[in-house]
Amino acid sequence: MPEFRKDPVTGRWVIIASERAKRPAAFVVDKAPRQEGFCPFCPGNERHTPDEVMAYRPAGSAPNRPDWWLRVVPNKYPALVANEPVKRAGNGMYDMINGMGVHEVFIETREHNKHIGQMDVKQVEEIVWAYRDRSIEMAKDQRLEYVMIFKNHLREAGASLEHPHSQLIAMPIVPKRVQEELEGAQRYFDYKERCVYCDIIKQEQSDRERIVCESDLFISILPFASRFPFECWILPTKHTSSFHDIQKNEVTAFAAILRETLDRLRVTLEDPPYNWMLHTSPLRQGENVYYHWHMEIIPKLTRQAGFEWGTGFYINPFSPEEACHALLPATAVVHDVG
Amino acid sequence: MPEFRKDPVTGRWVIIASERAKRPAAFVVDKAPRQEGFCPFCPGNERHTPDEVMAYRPAGSAPNRPDWWLRVVPNKYPALVANEPVKRAGNGMYDMINGMGVHEVFIETREHNKHIGQMDVKQVEEIVWAYRDRSIEMAKDQRLEYVMIFKNHLREAGASLEHPHSQLIAMPIVPKRVQEELEGAQRYFDYKERCVYCDIIKQEQSDRERIVCESDLFISILPFASRFPFECWILPTKHTSSFHDIQKNEVTAFAAILRETLDRLRVTLEDPPYNWMLHTSPLRQGENVYYHWHMEIIPKLTRQAGFEWGTGFYINPFSPEEACHALLPATAVVHDVG
Repeated sequence: MPEFRKDPVTGRWVIIASERAKRPAAFVVDKAPRQEGFCPFCPGNERHTPDEVMAYRPAGSAPNRPDWWLRVVPNKYPALVANEPVKRAGNGMYDMINGMGVHEVFIETREHNKHIGQMDVKQVEEIVWAYRDRSIEMAKDQRLEYVMIFKNHLREAGASLEHPHSQLIAMPIVPKRVQEELEGAQRYFDYKERCVYCDIIKQEQSDRERIVCESDLFISILPFASRFPFECWILPTKHTSSFHDIQKNEVTAFAAILRETLDRLRVTLEDPPYNWMLHTSPLRQGENVYYHWHMEIIPKLTRQAGFEWGTGFYINPFSPEEACHALLPATAVVHDVG
Repeated sequence: MPEFRKDPVTGRWVIIASERAKRPAAFVVDKAPRQEGFCPFCPGNERHTPDEVMAYRPAGSAPNRPDWWLRVVPNKYPALVANEPVKRAGNGMYDMINGMGVHEVFIETREHNKHIGQMDVKQVEEIVWAYRDRSIEMAKDQRLEYVMIFKNHLREAGASLEHPHSQLIAMPIVPKRVQEELEGAQRYFDYKERCVYCDIIKQEQSDRERIVCESDLFISILPFASRFPFECWILPTKHTSSFHDIQKNEVTAFAAILRETLDRLRVTLEDPPYNWMLHTSPLRQGENVYYHWHMEIIPKLTRQAGFEWGTGFYINPFSPEEACHALLPATAVVHDVG
């Protein structure tokens, strides 16, 4: 029997229609063949990207030299550019702002074919540190209101290059879906005087039906009102609203659970295309009691998605409980990720 | 220079980043080859669908006989089923409703390979009449709150069969994106005491930069804050909030402009995959001053869409003004669709 489930943060209803369900193997996606040839993100090709804005490289090494292990460069085809003041304008009833902002690319590793799920945790930590460092840098520019960090993995999920990379877009507005989450979380707090995400964590820890893996500091779950098969959220167990305030021990724990979650998806769904996005507080709101940063990972498995982005109406043919079962490691139910 | 543009209804900002732009030909999508073999929607195969709930066929012909010209059948793999009372339940902090609802398929024509853009207007009128008839039927069931009529064209846009068809889902809740539009329209009305869509129509008729085509009763535009390249909206020029109150002369005019818009997309983008959805008032709200029914057509051209449905954040690499120019007919600027 299908059921409507309501996302407790945004109030969005989704249909979980497991009657249409299939085995996890049915969700394995036909992918384009790997690209051959030149890669501007591989070591030695640094002159084919814009000059780096930051890199992790040996002490004393010069910028844009090939001895880096993580590199951040401006997007060569930016959606936004930084060298402008924010100008607001109207055209009759319509409002616009010039496209001021920052668009950067994190080259996550030297290795062209390395999936995050198969990296050393140490390298994943470096990626998380880079996100934090660039977020803090963005916060210094008072024109910017929001930093969005996201990853498109594989061509089917929008990646134009296959060398592992993620992206940052910083902009003078707060995107609508983020605003909607903030407002939902605020409403919940006004009513209950508790953070809605803290309550979700508590209920998931008690239900134990939708946990991918967990450690003292983080939990990875398949949300109750999942929009998509195998949608995963990773949340810090301790309340904190801004990703960029992440502490050193949390960086380690976050890297471990992120790697573990992505690796389970990789194994179960044969390296699926996916998108993820870091959901965090707007830059000028700072730490607050009602919002809770987290990462949302969305494997791109179903064609139906085409319809859903147009309408905001989601039909999910595979319940999070079934997906949870499919993601269990073959060897053990409890898995140490810390 | 890219710019942020704000949708005046929902307040959603999009980035129009035409620096990344290409010629329209760059948006032509590689499509899967046409399917060969058996089609359950073709005349003569009526026993391979569930029994029809309605059909347009010669007087005296029996249901499920092959002499129909339009046929409506229950979806064989429904996301929702009708034979249940609405039951609301909680599970800790989570809310759910059993999946009561209706899921039907409109088989739009007898002809397996006919694009709406190439049908006789008469046949498109029949399709519109069928939408109206089924909408009115749904309104009689007091458990239902919303009727969503939509179409997925081609496999790349989520269609599992290629014979021309569209779908209806009727459900006991109002989807979130619809609710958001209603609230945005209500807010605008509270402030201006005018319908926001009526104001959009007026401004488009005055700007004349984003009109695909128009007649006395309808206008087809590329919205100012288009989320996707070649996104089109069709609106009745006269204020009216419920699609199912459409009048006979409006059916004819709507069919004409729908056919014309889809045909321009077909010609310019070489039969692109697309989704459309009829946006109309919830069943129990009836006619009101602030909402305005319309159809949103979204060609599925860019892979980036994968990211956008996860975040609600849209980067559109082709401005609606450029798209408008590309959709102009080769022969004439003013085109009679009425």
